[in-house]
Amino acid sequence: MARIVMKFGGSSVATAERMVKVAQRVAKTRAEGHQVAVVVSAMGDTTDDLIALAKQVNERPPARELDMLLSTGEQVSIAVLTMALQGLGVPATSLTGGQAGFRVEQVFGKARILEVRPDRVDALLRDGHVAVVAGFQGVTDDGEIATLGRGGSDTTAVALAAALKADVCEIYTDVDGVYTTDPRIVKEAAKIPEISYDEMLELANLGAVVLHPRAVEYAKLYRVPLVVRSSFHDGPGTWVKEDANVEQGQVVRGIAHDLNVAKVSLVGVPNRRDSLGRVFHALAEENVNVDIIVQSIVHNDVHDISFTVCRDDLPVTLRVLEDLRVELGAGEIVAEEELAKISIVGAGMISNPGVAARMFDALIEAGLSIRMVSTSEIKVSCVVDARDVKRAVQVLHQAFELSASAEEKVNPVKA
Amino acid sequence: MARIVMKFGGSSVATAERMVKVAQRVAKTRAEGHQVAVVVSAMGDTTDDLIALAKQVNERPPARELDMLLSTGEQVSIAVLTMALQGLGVPATSLTGGQAGFRVEQVFGKARILEVRPDRVDALLRDGHVAVVAGFQGVTDDGEIATLGRGGSDTTAVALAAALKADVCEIYTDVDGVYTTDPRIVKEAAKIPEISYDEMLELANLGAVVLHPRAVEYAKLYRVPLVVRSSFHDGPGTWVKEDANVEQGQVVRGIAHDLNVAKVSLVGVPNRRDSLGRVFHALAEENVNVDIIVQSIVHNDVHDISFTVCRDDLPVTLRVLEDLRVELGAGEIVAEEELAKISIVGAGMISNPGVAARMFDALIEAGLSIRMVSTSEIKVSCVVDARDVKRAVQVLHQAFELSASAEEKVNPVKA
Repeated sequence: MARIVMKFGGSSVATAERMVKVAQRVAKTRAEGHQVAVVVSAMGDTTDDLIALAKQVNERPPARELDMLLSTGEQVSIAVLTMALQGLGVPATSLTGGQAGFRVEQVFGKARILEVRPDRVDALLRDGHVAVVAGFQGVTDDGEIATLGRGGSDTTAVALAAALKADVCEIYTDVDGVYTTDPRIVKEAAKIPEISYDEMLELANLGAVVLHPRAVEYAKLYRVPLVVRSSFHDGPGTWVKEDANVEQGQVVRGIAHDLNVAKVSLVGVPNRRDSLGRVFHALAEENVNVDIIVQSIVHNDVHDISFTVCRDDLPVTLRVLEDLRVELGAGEIVAEEELAKISIVGAGMISNPGVAARMFDALIEAGLSIRMVSTSEIKVSCVVDARDVKRAVQVLHQAFELSASAEEKVNPVKA
Repeated sequence: MARIVMKFGGSSVATAERMVKVAQRVAKTRAEGHQVAVVVSAMGDTTDDLIALAKQVNERPPARELDMLLSTGEQVSIAVLTMALQGLGVPATSLTGGQAGFRVEQVFGKARILEVRPDRVDALLRDGHVAVVAGFQGVTDDGEIATLGRGGSDTTAVALAAALKADVCEIYTDVDGVYTTDPRIVKEAAKIPEISYDEMLELANLGAVVLHPRAVEYAKLYRVPLVVRSSFHDGPGTWVKEDANVEQGQVVRGIAHDLNVAKVSLVGVPNRRDSLGRVFHALAEENVNVDIIVQSIVHNDVHDISFTVCRDDLPVTLRVLEDLRVELGAGEIVAEEELAKISIVGAGMISNPGVAARMFDALIEAGLSIRMVSTSEIKVSCVVDARDVKRAVQVLHQAFELSASAEEKVNPVKA
């Protein structure tokens, strides 16, 4: 007997029919003798619909009230799923975030979890009940309802699994696992059977949206084994855990790409010790997330500063830089939008020198130009022209022999 | 400056547009210098839609989970109305039933209010905030969400007004007050300017659905002045209070009718002291509400027992009686469905003998047959054939000069 947390996303519970399917799946797991807690998101597009409703009465809905509103989405889901389970004869009890013991910060719209008090869920599981817990939400010490923001339901599931000392946290989604790259770009993309937290974190941060990075971080912190599986059919999925097998000959686990990249350069910045700091402090104050940063060497007492940001952040970035340009006595500002970032990720890189070189060689041989480079211990990222991204992914997938290394051929399942 | 509780029903907040209208109305009341708490129901058909969703996954949704589900309807409303108020520059805070201090019994689907702890609402009002409270719900001592059942939002508003020691509880609805009778039947029906709690209770219990009887009882108990007004236009509405002016020459305040009436007779019951008690105990155990009861005089050691029930309760009533018939050694069971109850209500009856006689005369002169009669201090009810109900209402409205006595001609406003 194991203790299992199962998490189902919005598309898995989008309709009454799918709710019943999810209930059947949960019932099956319980019938196998396991203790089961379930975390669900809001049904289908509920959250978007509620946001649209809010905007009809207030263009900038206040955060506390938006949380009051959005938290109903998950509350509907837990009630309906619990009814469906009881309809199958499975004893089940729904719990809001607060009832399930989720104490959170009073930061509406992006509260962090302070503590999970699992007593009630634990008692339900010991009594043979399925506990159905609302994802994405918690209660502050003042009794306020606050939501966790993006990736909240994944994080809820992982945090609950940690608090319950669950054996595994199963994330059910509309794909059947984590792939070596986007199967829409490389049809030979293979499902990865096992991956480490760090590798998953890099892939998640780089735009492989199967799992939210925040949930992966939480899982890594509390050593919660995760498995990403399809909610629509059986299959082993992808295991995310600390000791993922890296001894399979391949140093690169997967390839991610991100088309939401803009590059900004501040040219001819007079050489002052604080210029770099001032630029990035000013951007941080405006909540602009800067990714890759390149500073040219000083030449004639001036240098250039280049960096990438999300394309959405480009307007605010340019506004901030324009003020700084005058202050710093810099030359012009150059912005480029049609860029993409392509990254190879693998824990094996640390002990395999020359991986970055192989990446550059492959891209250059294919005739692509590399605009910027960034590396970490388990990742190498290159900025390339957006129009080259598909070809770059294909070239790298082949160069690092990712198709051959995987045990399963791709079988992308979409809802 | 007064302290006011304003309650808006589902049709008043059915759309984003109407939410904004309600917000404007609340803002206007606050701008007049009053402290305002608002109670809202779920938007439009939300509750029905949620019940339909529940039935898709479970034909008999469990009560606890149904409350978990339905309570989201009001939670959506409070968030949206609060956003709309803030959009108008009005400081406002939404509160779930639990947050607003509603402690209720743990009886899902029909919890009674145990206590209202108004501290938080009180503090908000003193700070100049509008407190927007979810109707129909509360929290049990175990932290469970339970709904109050039918009429719950009216009751929430009255209970909140009582706890806050508010000067008035304003019930906004899709009609502009309480009428002498149903304006669809008598086009001369007039709006009643003032009515006592007891009269309103009788009318409410008799099917004038403007105000739920439970809310009126609560208002009477705590002496909360109520006013029923239209949410769509201004107007004085109908005041419901203890000392409603009864000295206006008319002894009858209003006429109600109820088409949901079935009559059941148990014929030839052998004369035993406990037979009547056994019949009505058995029906009470099955939650059948018995209304008018008539026992014939004993004749040849047997008597007949006749009574009325809601038409919905007829099948269970017949089942109970069939068992008893054998036990009691009675003769046959006779059921009639096509009946209606028509009632005249007025506190002035107590001091005006002959009101019942005037009623019977008017009905008989019109050629209608009276099947059963029941009286209380402020009410006389007659059971008539269902096909006669419209004519009966018209005849009585004229006989008691209700059109002439009212200050306003009918102006029925429907959403």
